[in-house]
Amino acid sequence: MNKLLYAIGIGPGGREGITIAAEEAMQSCDTIVGYSVYIDLVKDRLPGKKFISTPMTKETDRCRLALEEANGGHATAMICSGDAGVYGMASLLYQMRDAYPEVEIRVIPGVTAALSGAALLGSPLSCDFCAISLSDYLTPADVIEKRLKAAGEGDFCIVLYNPGSRKRKGYLAKACDILLAYRDPGTICGIVRNIGREGEEAMVLSLEQLRSTEPDMFTTVFIGNSTTLEIAGRMVTPRGYQL
Amino acid sequence: MNKLLYAIGIGPGGREGITIAAEEAMQSCDTIVGYSVYIDLVKDRLPGKKFISTPMTKETDRCRLALEEANGGHATAMICSGDAGVYGMASLLYQMRDAYPEVEIRVIPGVTAALSGAALLGSPLSCDFCAISLSDYLTPADVIEKRLKAAGEGDFCIVLYNPGSRKRKGYLAKACDILLAYRDPGTICGIVRNIGREGEEAMVLSLEQLRSTEPDMFTTVFIGNSTTLEIAGRMVTPRGYQL
Repeated sequence: MNKLLYAIGIGPGGREGITIAAEEAMQSCDTIVGYSVYIDLVKDRLPGKKFISTPMTKETDRCRLALEEANGGHATAMICSGDAGVYGMASLLYQMRDAYPEVEIRVIPGVTAALSGAALLGSPLSCDFCAISLSDYLTPADVIEKRLKAAGEGDFCIVLYNPGSRKRKGYLAKACDILLAYRDPGTICGIVRNIGREGEEAMVLSLEQLRSTEPDMFTTVFIGNSTTLEIAGRMVTPRGYQL
Repeated sequence: MNKLLYAIGIGPGGREGITIAAEEAMQSCDTIVGYSVYIDLVKDRLPGKKFISTPMTKETDRCRLALEEANGGHATAMICSGDAGVYGMASLLYQMRDAYPEVEIRVIPGVTAALSGAALLGSPLSCDFCAISLSDYLTPADVIEKRLKAAGEGDFCIVLYNPGSRKRKGYLAKACDILLAYRDPGTICGIVRNIGREGEEAMVLSLEQLRSTEPDMFTTVFIGNSTTLEIAGRMVTPRGYQL
């Protein structure tokens, strides 16, 4: 029998945002591993489980603990917010898997912030889109800049993950400056905070207004393409149907 | 009281791939509207509902029927495969909403094929990525070409929706030719078919091999960036952690 390690996306956080498959996989496990904030979101509905959490920036430790737990014969779930495959732990688990050849990794997808945030704003990603993280912790700043330029060039709708934090101020303004070379200052944009949690908010604004906004680490940012509209206070990118 | 129209993403198709919120919203409605194939996927678990379906290419009719049903005081769900906001009906509902000012549209997000397909392949979208539809039914061919070039330029991981159909042969080969100007022929790619349904399959292959593949309308295609690896038969894009 295989030693199972699930990489599970729990969606925005509340029970209602998880898929039935992800909930069932989590319930079927002996051990739940995750960043402490996410463990707190699911702990109450998982009585009798063993929980292992590590702080942020300890991702390789967290993955090693999960792989060791699974290798020890305990069905294990590594939980991630959103989707485990989108800026989550799934790829790192695969990269570290060599030392644990008997462990089988199964990714159970979840609703990433691009989708949950979009739903709150209206329908901003209904045409071709890019997801870009503004964090230069893992990706060099010049690569991020190259991608922002390419996204501008391609007239993609854009969703920005990790647009800022206490330590990374001014990153969003810089990204907006890059995009303002390709897009009108009036381009329809959106900001979402605390998706699916207390203090949830969504706001539609222009690219120019977005430029002077300082996001925190609970913010996801959406930048429209050249066709994106504001309809009844919502951010909507048409697909191109003739009305 | 508002007249409610939900735009619901049901995920890949099976009950296990839907979120709890989406399932509950669907169950709470009087009327379920959708493309006939998706109605068939949910019908059995929604006894006592009124179902309205229209064939493919009748999207504006379908949205009008949903808006009229909601406007008539029946809580209504427009269901879409994957996510209603990603190549789904949510934006069209918003665009057609003007004639029904009392109707409130609420989007309930779901697991789009980018995420469900990625989970089957491993973790291909773990770094910045683009979603591009190869269908030129709603987007002009030169815009699609521009976006493929930009995605190549930005070294994005790419997920291709609608890579081909009986009527659109050769579109994937053309897209691969564009990307081969930016990427090595050995770039790790993936193909997924019939996600979450009978006949589900996932295959990892090179960009060169992908070029000579003819996809059908149930296929989703993934193209790695310059760092994407094949690990134990899976497609994995590292995030950049030091191991």
